[in-house]
Amino acid sequence: MLRLHDYRFSGNGYKVRLLLSLLGLTFERIEYDIDRGETRTPDFLRLNPNGRIPVLELEDGRALAESNAILAYLAEGTRFLPADRFERALVLHWLFFEQHSHEPNIATLRYWITHRLIDDERRPLVDGKRRWGYAALDVMEHHLEARRYFVGERYSIADIALYAYTHVAEEGEFDLARYAAIRRWLARVAAEPGHIPITKG
Amino acid sequence: MLRLHDYRFSGNGYKVRLLLSLLGLTFERIEYDIDRGETRTPDFLRLNPNGRIPVLELEDGRALAESNAILAYLAEGTRFLPADRFERALVLHWLFFEQHSHEPNIATLRYWITHRLIDDERRPLVDGKRRWGYAALDVMEHHLEARRYFVGERYSIADIALYAYTHVAEEGEFDLARYAAIRRWLARVAAEPGHIPITKG
Repeated sequence: MLRLHDYRFSGNGYKVRLLLSLLGLTFERIEYDIDRGETRTPDFLRLNPNGRIPVLELEDGRALAESNAILAYLAEGTRFLPADRFERALVLHWLFFEQHSHEPNIATLRYWITHRLIDDERRPLVDGKRRWGYAALDVMEHHLEARRYFVGERYSIADIALYAYTHVAEEGEFDLARYAAIRRWLARVAAEPGHIPITKG
Repeated sequence: MLRLHDYRFSGNGYKVRLLLSLLGLTFERIEYDIDRGETRTPDFLRLNPNGRIPVLELEDGRALAESNAILAYLAEGTRFLPADRFERALVLHWLFFEQHSHEPNIATLRYWITHRLIDDERRPLVDGKRRWGYAALDVMEHHLEARRYFVGERYSIADIALYAYTHVAEEGEFDLARYAAIRRWLARVAAEPGHIPITKG
């Protein structure tokens, strides 16, 4: 059986749980408390030397890390990854945008705020992350104003990757009120058959 | 003809120039001075609403941004992207690692230091970027100790993506002296047929 090394609170873990649910795949979930350093043990570092969840362990024991690489692996040959070469590249474009311009700002502020981690070392970083997080939301809003989904007008792993931390952005004190197109898209994703909330799966 | 919207200094632009050279593809290069905001003009934002180079413009006018998405697009069906599904996912794993754990630290410090941009706003961020940049180099060193290339013992876009900012990490005051496996791998990549330096292409 597939085995997902995971942390319930994580949007990166949720991406994989959500796609596994949409695909109807069963899996075993192993929970790690990242606040207690459980992803920095020698055993975990053998799975992922970068010390981060999620890691998908295949039935033959091979392990794959990086949430968006796992999405691409699982989606191959399914309706969640386009067959057209250029559309596939556009999906990857949004996956890289998510990991470079979105997650480091929106996910990190959510984690720091909900876990009360803003100390003297982190406080000088908050304004920059707030500004760049809103810049990422601006790019998404602009793109979604004329579209139902991120690529090819079909639900794909680009939507799954960006949904994960956008739908909980308010936990990081990002105000989504002014993002009408994003809010319509969030509702659209949540209405997809097989959808699960971040607290499940 | 392919058209690359680019900035000579950029490792992200270099990745694409290098792969185009390895593939023997001709292209027109358009240079932007990002320090003067040339990627924030209305014309550029129509190409990439995220306001960043590189952007690859195809012959039919369609545009693709995000350096690693461009690499994946160009490499498809070539020897620079494995045919095996799991190996392809491993390549993507390293591309996401590069954009999430490597580039925001190593490339950013290189840019700030060479362009003398460390002001009161950026100074509090330097220590964290230094620490996380070395953490990324540690992960690479560990991986390369028993390998010649990042995936499947063949040169791929995973190597191209990671080479781009690693080979100029010392411009960001990262000391590579203690990274023997990385230095052997850098020499190996530079010896590939069709290799070009960051200043060319």
